[in-house]
Amino acid sequence: MALLTWVQAHGDLPKDAVQVRTLARHYAELDQIGELAALFEGDASLSAEERDVVEQKEGWVLGVGRSDKDQALDWLNSYIRTPNEIYKKSQHLIEQEIDVSGFENDMADVAVRMIHACGDVDVGDDIAYSQNAAQKGREALQNGAPVLVDVEMVSHGIIRKRLPAHNPVVCTLNDARTPAKAEELGTTRSAAAVEFWGDWLDGAVVVIGNAPTALFHLIQGILDGRLAKPALIIACPVGFVGAMESKETLIALAEDMDVPYISLRGRRGGSAVAAAALNALAKKGITQ
Amino acid sequence: MALLTWVQAHGDLPKDAVQVRTLARHYAELDQIGELAALFEGDASLSAEERDVVEQKEGWVLGVGRSDKDQALDWLNSYIRTPNEIYKKSQHLIEQEIDVSGFENDMADVAVRMIHACGDVDVGDDIAYSQNAAQKGREALQNGAPVLVDVEMVSHGIIRKRLPAHNPVVCTLNDARTPAKAEELGTTRSAAAVEFWGDWLDGAVVVIGNAPTALFHLIQGILDGRLAKPALIIACPVGFVGAMESKETLIALAEDMDVPYISLRGRRGGSAVAAAALNALAKKGITQ
Repeated sequence: MALLTWVQAHGDLPKDAVQVRTLARHYAELDQIGELAALFEGDASLSAEERDVVEQKEGWVLGVGRSDKDQALDWLNSYIRTPNEIYKKSQHLIEQEIDVSGFENDMADVAVRMIHACGDVDVGDDIAYSQNAAQKGREALQNGAPVLVDVEMVSHGIIRKRLPAHNPVVCTLNDARTPAKAEELGTTRSAAAVEFWGDWLDGAVVVIGNAPTALFHLIQGILDGRLAKPALIIACPVGFVGAMESKETLIALAEDMDVPYISLRGRRGGSAVAAAALNALAKKGITQ
Repeated sequence: MALLTWVQAHGDLPKDAVQVRTLARHYAELDQIGELAALFEGDASLSAEERDVVEQKEGWVLGVGRSDKDQALDWLNSYIRTPNEIYKKSQHLIEQEIDVSGFENDMADVAVRMIHACGDVDVGDDIAYSQNAAQKGREALQNGAPVLVDVEMVSHGIIRKRLPAHNPVVCTLNDARTPAKAEELGTTRSAAAVEFWGDWLDGAVVVIGNAPTALFHLIQGILDGRLAKPALIIACPVGFVGAMESKETLIALAEDMDVPYISLRGRRGGSAVAAAALNALAKKGITQ
């Protein structure tokens, strides 16, 4: 910083004290001639958010900002408490930051909810879907399709009161027969649980929020003609082993399988984003 | 691409056919003099992962790679099926990609599990914790501390068999009294639910995976001396309204509150990452 270059040690005062005194005088002089404020205007190209960060993180050095504690107490006293306001502000912020105009009409809602569940607008770039997938999922739910999930977390992320037809939400992971089936097939319990979806599967909305093996197992079963076709697969396995691969496999083979899909490419995913996609399809206009 | 610049239309052959024939001859000639392979080596600075992407996405143009469908079928036939192998490979990949040596001993495990739950190594940069937080949480659980959670999704992400002392997992969000309390306090049900943690709270491990308002409400209650101090707060609210602020508030005031914390800064978070942190503290060495 140029201002610091002409600060020199002075007499027997500690160097820091000299710096402070010298800078203070310099600022006072600038202030007298009305040029102090301009010094702190910052780069005109900064966004409001960047400006906020600089002011919070750096401003306190000059006493023009607040300490982290002051800021914390301020947040504590002023946070938004009512669900409707929270929901509206959240939607507004997402819409400011991301452009959902590239998504199909029904998919824009789904994308916003998926992004919201992740707290990360970058997720929007990885959302993939087949044509009219959202519409097909919405119609299936309206017609009473069951919702089949790989793990209990997904089940508990689905807002029951949004479901349009008291649709049953089924998780067979903890079915008493699942561990033995997993042993028999040499696979995970999550994959074995798919075997017990049985008659539910035909025309269902499948929501996979965790297990790549469940998705792989389902794809194989459908390709073999051994398992019925769901109306939609929401595919959001997460993690480092198989998640990306299982989703890319679905995307590459969905047309051959003749099954619509909504997915989040890459390693990211999870129960929350999977449930959020389902909730978006279930019904519009109800706040969480 | 330089090779294409000398491809010219030739006689009455369609231009595309000319291009293909010309390029094919050129490649054949390079091959004869042993210089074809060098052409496809790629930039030496590419990482193995980048190289993989290029080979998959572009290689098929030259017939040196496979189509997306071939790749999908390959994944479908070869995916890892056994839980132990999946877990080991996942841990290995995370350890290859992230350096957990900067974390306190007990926190390294927690960080790995949090990253795993998000499928995103970048998350590591946002993990914040007070000194010995992981150790204190681990000890509390071993001593039978209850686990208090803000939403059912967190509860269902906690692996009960890992808990060292049959610790109760308590969620009061759906307590019959919660809606009226939320109305009375003019806040969310998540925040009101904290009021019903009552005697459980003293020395508990709190896990917040969703609601900024619950975290704010808890902080305020502890600061006021109205609510007891938990042994640890795992703070992972997610979203665009209040999530970042509530976590920064906790971090700034934790010392004044005299409560240890583990948190994921910023907007990211969620039930899965919160539950993963708790699972990491609960016990070591058990696969998922």
